[in-house]
Amino acid sequence: MIKVGIIGVSGYTGFELYKLLRRHPAVAIAWLTTESYGGQRLSDVFPCPWDDPLLSLADAPIAEADVVFLCLPHAASMPAVAAVRAAGVKAIDLSADFRIHDAVTYERWYGTAHTQTALLADAIYGLPELHRAEIADASLVANPGCYPTSVILGLWPLAEAGWLQGQIIVDSKSGVSGAGRKPKLSNSFVETNENLSPYSIGYSHRHIAEMEQELGIAEYGMRNANLVFSPHLLPVSRGILSTMYVMLPEAVDEAMVRAAYADTYPGEPFVHLLPAGQVATLHHTVGTNRCAIGLTFVPGTATLIVTSTLDNLIKGASGQAVQNLNVMFGLEETMGLEA
Amino acid sequence: MIKVGIIGVSGYTGFELYKLLRRHPAVAIAWLTTESYGGQRLSDVFPCPWDDPLLSLADAPIAEADVVFLCLPHAASMPAVAAVRAAGVKAIDLSADFRIHDAVTYERWYGTAHTQTALLADAIYGLPELHRAEIADASLVANPGCYPTSVILGLWPLAEAGWLQGQIIVDSKSGVSGAGRKPKLSNSFVETNENLSPYSIGYSHRHIAEMEQELGIAEYGMRNANLVFSPHLLPVSRGILSTMYVMLPEAVDEAMVRAAYADTYPGEPFVHLLPAGQVATLHHTVGTNRCAIGLTFVPGTATLIVTSTLDNLIKGASGQAVQNLNVMFGLEETMGLEA
Amino acid sequence: MIKVGIIGVSGYTGFELYKLLRRHPAVAIAWLTTESYGGQRLSDVFPCPWDDPLLSLADAPIAEADVVFLCLPHAASMPAVAAVRAAGVKAIDLSADFRIHDAVTYERWYGTAHTQTALLADAIYGLPELHRAEIADASLVANPGCYPTSVILGLWPLAEAGWLQGQIIVDSKSGVSGAGRKPKLSNSFVETNENLSPYSIGYSHRHIAEMEQELGIAEYGMRNANLVFSPHLLPVSRGILSTMYVMLPEAVDEAMVRAAYADTYPGEPFVHLLPAGQVATLHHTVGTNRCAIGLTFVPGTATLIVTSTLDNLIKGASGQAVQNLNVMFGLEETMGLEA
Amino acid sequence: MIKVGIIGVSGYTGFELYKLLRRHPAVAIAWLTTESYGGQRLSDVFPCPWDDPLLSLADAPIAEADVVFLCLPHAASMPAVAAVRAAGVKAIDLSADFRIHDAVTYERWYGTAHTQTALLADAIYGLPELHRAEIADASLVANPGCYPTSVILGLWPLAEAGWLQGQIIVDSKSGVSGAGRKPKLSNSFVETNENLSPYSIGYSHRHIAEMEQELGIAEYGMRNANLVFSPHLLPVSRGILSTMYVMLPEAVDEAMVRAAYADTYPGEPFVHLLPAGQVATLHHTVGTNRCAIGLTFVPGTATLIVTSTLDNLIKGASGQAVQNLNVMFGLEETMGLEA
Repeated sequence: MIKVGIIGVSGYTGFELYKLLRRHPAVAIAWLTTESYGGQRLSDVFPCPWDDPLLSLADAPIAEADVVFLCLPHAASMPAVAAVRAAGVKAIDLSADFRIHDAVTYERWYGTAHTQTALLADAIYGLPELHRAEIADASLVANPGCYPTSVILGLWPLAEAGWLQGQIIVDSKSGVSGAGRKPKLSNSFVETNENLSPYSIGYSHRHIAEMEQELGIAEYGMRNANLVFSPHLLPVSRGILSTMYVMLPEAVDEAMVRAAYADTYPGEPFVHLLPAGQVATLHHTVGTNRCAIGLTFVPGTATLIVTSTLDNLIKGASGQAVQNLNVMFGLEETMGLEA
Repeated sequence: MIKVGIIGVSGYTGFELYKLLRRHPAVAIAWLTTESYGGQRLSDVFPCPWDDPLLSLADAPIAEADVVFLCLPHAASMPAVAAVRAAGVKAIDLSADFRIHDAVTYERWYGTAHTQTALLADAIYGLPELHRAEIADASLVANPGCYPTSVILGLWPLAEAGWLQGQIIVDSKSGVSGAGRKPKLSNSFVETNENLSPYSIGYSHRHIAEMEQELGIAEYGMRNANLVFSPHLLPVSRGILSTMYVMLPEAVDEAMVRAAYADTYPGEPFVHLLPAGQVATLHHTVGTNRCAIGLTFVPGTATLIVTSTLDNLIKGASGQAVQNLNVMFGLEETMGLEA
Repeated sequence: MIKVGIIGVSGYTGFELYKLLRRHPAVAIAWLTTESYGGQRLSDVFPCPWDDPLLSLADAPIAEADVVFLCLPHAASMPAVAAVRAAGVKAIDLSADFRIHDAVTYERWYGTAHTQTALLADAIYGLPELHRAEIADASLVANPGCYPTSVILGLWPLAEAGWLQGQIIVDSKSGVSGAGRKPKLSNSFVETNENLSPYSIGYSHRHIAEMEQELGIAEYGMRNANLVFSPHLLPVSRGILSTMYVMLPEAVDEAMVRAAYADTYPGEPFVHLLPAGQVATLHHTVGTNRCAIGLTFVPGTATLIVTSTLDNLIKGASGQAVQNLNVMFGLEETMGLEA
Repeated sequence: MIKVGIIGVSGYTGFELYKLLRRHPAVAIAWLTTESYGGQRLSDVFPCPWDDPLLSLADAPIAEADVVFLCLPHAASMPAVAAVRAAGVKAIDLSADFRIHDAVTYERWYGTAHTQTALLADAIYGLPELHRAEIADASLVANPGCYPTSVILGLWPLAEAGWLQGQIIVDSKSGVSGAGRKPKLSNSFVETNENLSPYSIGYSHRHIAEMEQELGIAEYGMRNANLVFSPHLLPVSRGILSTMYVMLPEAVDEAMVRAAYADTYPGEPFVHLLPAGQVATLHHTVGTNRCAIGLTFVPGTATLIVTSTLDNLIKGASGQAVQNLNVMFGLEETMGLEA
């Protein structure tokens, strides 16, 4: 059994991870920490029957774990990952701190200097569909963001084929759990319910950095493609849908595009390419570790609409972290992740 | 035009009141205050086109108003009402501070001493269907709570007839706006959505004091009726439904009960007695100042089920406050309150 | 008092219209018809206290009305409008049947021939912000669709200025009441709740015809601008948000664009131009007859993101119909439409 | 591997069952039938990646299964169960048809005669916490209703102790999936969302029959206890909460009651007794096969409030059916049912 620790179990991704790992047949949960509930039990913090004790991070017996999952806010994760790695323990970090290879880019988007640049050089971006082999050998995996997973998986076959060009519109909609568990006016029920709110539109959401890095697109104006990313807050608890508009190069037709997607993701257990005529909806993937992708062509134009959906807490966070664990430890990649 | 001030406009009841008063044909809004947004404008605090300045309470020109509405938390309202009354201005207080006639009972339920007992003696409980004449002459009206309005209007004909006896079960369900606008884990979207939570059950919710006072029921064990009040948090923005179970005296039959309700509320513009066979639902009243009441008799038993519903921000708070204004100033009682 | 009849009151737009007209100070409701509930009363069909009788269309005393509102499905409205006009009564048609000036275009999108082409020539597209003068003189007003109202008002200043060019992405999201009241799997609660579904994407939604007509854009490929319109079904009861992406001509800067919007809509009572830094959300307009418009510029690019929102049952249907009534009868345009 | 067939997979319980059985380690799904989608594939009917063919019932190779689950409407299930049993195959029936031992009672509540009374004599009521041993030997299990499971498990310790007396108020609230997948006005989004509706109150809901049978309570007036059952339709997709009010016999105190619950359910894997101070909420159990039960005592009275919650599609239907399968086939009772 692989012994795991979870740092930051009291947020939504932390608890989702706990539930996934609990039923994972090859995992034993060794310890749990929280920022604010140290000394309490899990059942005090979430409506559940599990009485596991919650430690403060300082008391966590890091070295007793084979691998540690970190569910901390960005910036807070840097020293914690360093402590885990210093103990010789593998780390899967769900924060943004080790996703951006370039420390300068990190600092520009996150407004704080990177304090662990040596570790940063070791970190692998944990999207198995793109980086499976490197994840298998990694000791530090930077688990992708929820929006980027939907966008990168949805556009990657086009990027590979060299068909991303010009302006790419990404109109994304996310459920409220993506905003975290800390109470704020913007995620309170009455403000969010029966509402839909664009936010951080106009090239200002931090997740753009990951998308540009992985799709091989430099910042706007610098190369031949630029992303316009518009997130919206949706009145659902979980789920992301990205509706993406791409202008295809002239010689590229529908058959070529469908072939490119099929060839890029052969046998991928967690990518669900929808048949022609279907579009991706939240219900395709909520509660699962899948990303569902639909392709719609606008007749008479070169415009392709890609709809890409996933559960932001599973394929967009904790499920993908378990998938990374499976890859890192040589297990069946779907273990513990059956729908 | 009646000049009004609103103290505490930045909560849900305050803003609802603002919107109702804005379109009230006999009212001019003189000034607005907020606890935390002083110096900003209304459109900074709510998604609306109205740029009214927000004052801090200390800067409010109280005496320029003919009547002041107070939308403050309990305890905070006592000194503010005193200041309004000291300026010779009428007050409609939406807090709990002047609802309970007996200062000792107030202190027991609210955990704080009543500091304005002289004013308390003047205060009229602002439920027009019960106290219309006194409200017309009042200078201080204590606007009822949302749960109590649904319960008192639903049971008042039985109380009048002397048919309340034994244990009365009140199983109430309220939308989240009843919990206020201040962010808390318990009113955040993900915690509330797709959930239903009983809270403060087992004789612990403060609104019991009002219900007992108005229905003429002393505390449990002391008279011949006692209330068991069970509120539940419902995943809707607004609306209260109280499902109430009453064991009728032996000689009382369905026709007598229906007659009692009809006779108690003849021509009441805001009480909607449902015909036999209909039950009250939130959609009967959301967005209106009405209370809808349905009567269902359990065949073969003496049990009457009263379903009573209202919009907690309108008939349960701000609409009722406007109704009280209309009564106090001799206006048509429905003015500004058409659905 | 203007005497009005409503044909098709039992759908969501019909009932919304009824409620607006009920409190309109210059209107008396003369009669109501329904397709399926003839002989019943309004309170049998909706949870409300109003017992108005419901006639079948054949029994409606059309000539007793000064104006008739028609809330029928497309195709069904053509003969009904003809009957109203034959009786010499003004008509405000909420269906699509008289919105498209060109009968061939109508037939192509709606799959049925236009049987009232003579009347079609008289019909005015009822968007007061664009066609106020013609509406004032009209005897037949074709009330716009909900999506088109949000899109046309949001883009009209750009169309006027000649700045619409290339591909315009319109990513729209609508609440479920837009799908009508007839039960279907696609608008049932469990299918819709906690979901988000793109539908009719890829140049297939009928509302495109109106948008192209009013914005002066011919079909894709024929002129210098084409619309890509992607509607999504949103788990809210009411509200539309259109997020629109426009590539501005090179010489056009932010100040020019903001000036164009301000100059196009001076003093418009129902257009709310948001200040810089704000984006439109459903909560800006739900429950009102307003359309709120926000402008966001993507730095370093020529891309303008227009967010435009309205309540699909009010400004997107019944409120706009009342606004048209006010214009047609020379009343204050805001009468009966205060928030 | 146990070979299973599912009759009626296209409803919510059928699809939930499919998903649970798919990941059950000891089960192989042999065939699926539907009433209306014969010839299509599962992915045509639900948003999922599974292409299993859907047969019509007439084409189902019943005898190739070791056990058949039936997810049919009541009355329709009687002949289908008979066909399954005639083929010598075990049956787990999720309809109401075999739950009521007494055919006369069945006919009275369901309005149709029981046509399979011989089979009825063999049927075991499939609530493992009450009837585990008989289920182990059964060839026909009648899977309980969703409301009854929450009510019976919540009150069973009191029934066992002989403490159920007088009037027992059961105020239940259910998510919309309990109403089935067939489109109806009453389960459409706009009618249900932002609403709460009591329905079938006043001793008219059919599930009362099961509750009375299992709790050993005869009909009202005949013994010393009677149930008042009030279901409400809640705007959530899944989950039931029953708030139940019981007047305890005089000599019974809190400690005795807590001991009775603990002693009745020792080691039950799917009954979660909440600690003192906690109440049951939907979030305790949604997505799991558990029933969570909270006990609240009203001080100064003999009133006990039992809150009992479960996921109506899992412990209230398909999860319990899998639990029954496990018991019938001698498997670990929790197999395939980990949260």
